[in-house]
Amino acid sequence: MSSLTDVQNNTLHQAQQQIQQDLLAALQAFSLPEPLKSAVHHAVMLGGKRVRPALCYATAAIRPNQNRAAVRRAAVAVELIHCYSLAHDDLPCMDNDQLRRGQPTCHVAYGEDTALLAGDILQSMAFEVLGSRLFDQGEAVEPSIVLKQMQILATASSKMVCGQVLDLQAEGKQIDQQALETIHRNKTGALITAAIMMAAVTIFQGTDPAIPQLRQYGQNIGLAFQVQDDILDIIANTEQLGKTAGKDEQVDKSTYPALMGLEPAKAYAQNLHDQAFAALQFFEGQAQELEQISQFLLARQF
Amino acid sequence: MSSLTDVQNNTLHQAQQQIQQDLLAALQAFSLPEPLKSAVHHAVMLGGKRVRPALCYATAAIRPNQNRAAVRRAAVAVELIHCYSLAHDDLPCMDNDQLRRGQPTCHVAYGEDTALLAGDILQSMAFEVLGSRLFDQGEAVEPSIVLKQMQILATASSKMVCGQVLDLQAEGKQIDQQALETIHRNKTGALITAAIMMAAVTIFQGTDPAIPQLRQYGQNIGLAFQVQDDILDIIANTEQLGKTAGKDEQVDKSTYPALMGLEPAKAYAQNLHDQAFAALQFFEGQAQELEQISQFLLARQF
Repeated sequence: MSSLTDVQNNTLHQAQQQIQQDLLAALQAFSLPEPLKSAVHHAVMLGGKRVRPALCYATAAIRPNQNRAAVRRAAVAVELIHCYSLAHDDLPCMDNDQLRRGQPTCHVAYGEDTALLAGDILQSMAFEVLGSRLFDQGEAVEPSIVLKQMQILATASSKMVCGQVLDLQAEGKQIDQQALETIHRNKTGALITAAIMMAAVTIFQGTDPAIPQLRQYGQNIGLAFQVQDDILDIIANTEQLGKTAGKDEQVDKSTYPALMGLEPAKAYAQNLHDQAFAALQFFEGQAQELEQISQFLLARQF
Repeated sequence: MSSLTDVQNNTLHQAQQQIQQDLLAALQAFSLPEPLKSAVHHAVMLGGKRVRPALCYATAAIRPNQNRAAVRRAAVAVELIHCYSLAHDDLPCMDNDQLRRGQPTCHVAYGEDTALLAGDILQSMAFEVLGSRLFDQGEAVEPSIVLKQMQILATASSKMVCGQVLDLQAEGKQIDQQALETIHRNKTGALITAAIMMAAVTIFQGTDPAIPQLRQYGQNIGLAFQVQDDILDIIANTEQLGKTAGKDEQVDKSTYPALMGLEPAKAYAQNLHDQAFAALQFFEGQAQELEQISQFLLARQF
């Protein structure tokens, strides 16, 4: 009999395999000139936890086999947006990072101009994929569903940028927990919630009470994810993270452990996870995959 | 009686007033933190010829008062994409331009990080506006129409980036006219054509023979616009252009006058305009505003 951890890892592992395959198929559908093509592949295909696509699939698994193509496109689109944000965040005028996922960052490998343009095109490619017929088998998805997905993704992408700005503004300043939450609800939480909601609209009508429950879950898991990122930045090393550890302290960023202490930050992450789980009670066991991914996220060491 | 030139200018002038008003309304619908808000306003509101929105309105004027809100949103969205591309093109790692529309470029005024993020959010804002209910009066637009607009805009935005990459790759190299056309059909032409096609889908069904005629018009007028830009870069001065003149030669860019000589380049621009006009014959006088804008573009000195 497999342990709970095996099951959790299996759900995530399957999601990772699926998204890796779909991302590759999506990129191959585009005809890009070099060195842009290589830079885009570098930014997208080098791995990462693929948390957003996994949450997208896991949400759709509440009502399996509905609008499957739209779910797969959404998972690709949200990951492309995430990858664009990483390529731009790493640029010299931003975080000036050299290492990402254990590899040279996009601008280190391809130059600043190409990394900038790779990020730019990843954003429009995300919307192209969302509006495409990629992965369609048979019936096309209702335009109204695709339109909702587009609205969710565009809004979250804008919020992500606002969060980035708020984060830059807060560097070197004393900010309170509310301000820190506003930063992270925008910077990280919005796109994580979007991954969930883009799947939610493929299986539930807008008026379904499941929708606010999933949003509630997304907002809590999104913030929990960031609190843990802050914690791991302190307790993990560079090798485990695949990016420079201890970076937050170096650049004098406000973090949850800095603000509230390491142990209270851990307790806060647990509390957010509990609230996320509570929102899933509504589904009476049908949201099993979301529960599994949450378990994995809570236990993660990288 | 007003002269032909007055009429042309009037059509463009009205479009400029409309888009200025709509851009402002769109920006005001967003809640952005400082300094992002100011940087976005700087990138969008300082003017420019507003050729893309004008072409969008002029196309819609072939069948007036159909899906007006979708046309207005499309005009805003396409201009936001254009403004994002300018903010990123001007960055130090790209063209490193100090002056745009007679004003400091976005990164000169607000710093590289904020200019990067302003460009990033302008792209997602464009899709937000497109999927919004902004300017709606009464009935919502068919989701299938909005979806088509999104596909057109996203594809053109990706092409624009590809054109930018091809352009960078061609710097300092001898390229032939076909390669130069590929660059400009992507870099400039795609978004200009998109402005027209995003309006076209609000007034014509996908199978209507008007659609390929408008695409034909767009592709020719888009390339003509670029050929003239190249010509004006040589014959106009910095004050007239509002940006650094003679820049192309300085950075050893391939241009139409450099490739074919100034007079043949002028003849080529005229030829492209003639082909654009020819495509409008299909509308038997109903595409008057498009004719007027084309006349203006052909005669422009800046």
